[in-house]
Amino acid sequence: MAKAKIYITFKDGVLEPQGKTVNAALVKMGYKNIKDVRIGKYIEMEIDGNNEKIKKEVDEICDKLLANPNIEKYDFEII
Amino acid sequence: MAKAKIYITFKDGVLEPQGKTVNAALVKMGYKNIKDVRIGKYIEMEIDGNNEKIKKEVDEICDKLLANPNIEKYDFEII
Repeated sequence: MAKAKIYITFKDGVLEPQGKTVNAALVKMGYKNIKDVRIGKYIEMEIDGNNEKIKKEVDEICDKLLANPNIEKYDFEII
Repeated sequence: MAKAKIYITFKDGVLEPQGKTVNAALVKMGYKNIKDVRIGKYIEMEIDGNNEKIKKEVDEICDKLLANPNIEKYDFEII
């Protein structure tokens, strides 16, 4: 059993209002050294199979279901 | 300028329906070897200051604003 850790974020240049709001809140709370915040998704998956197959599958799953390739990019690692 | 990568997930034992739904969808799509899916938040932060101060601040921010310590746990790295 392997674990896949998947990180999905908006592509650079895509406006991410949730992060902007958190950034503004933090600056208001006194954390004036915070320059940028971007919020994405973090997904952990328990998955059976050999490493090569898992890599292929996770890539496929990210592309088809988890990320919107028009505006999001993803990255993952298998551990 | 440093970058903080923050991972927020529900604590073990806390029901996470979004992940369960994705898991069921993936099994239905034919990925029968997916055993568990848990969805959390991934946050990237650009932050000024020295490493020690940044670590302390990010820990504080996670605890106060980003995570709900009753049901969520967090982890971060500074790069």
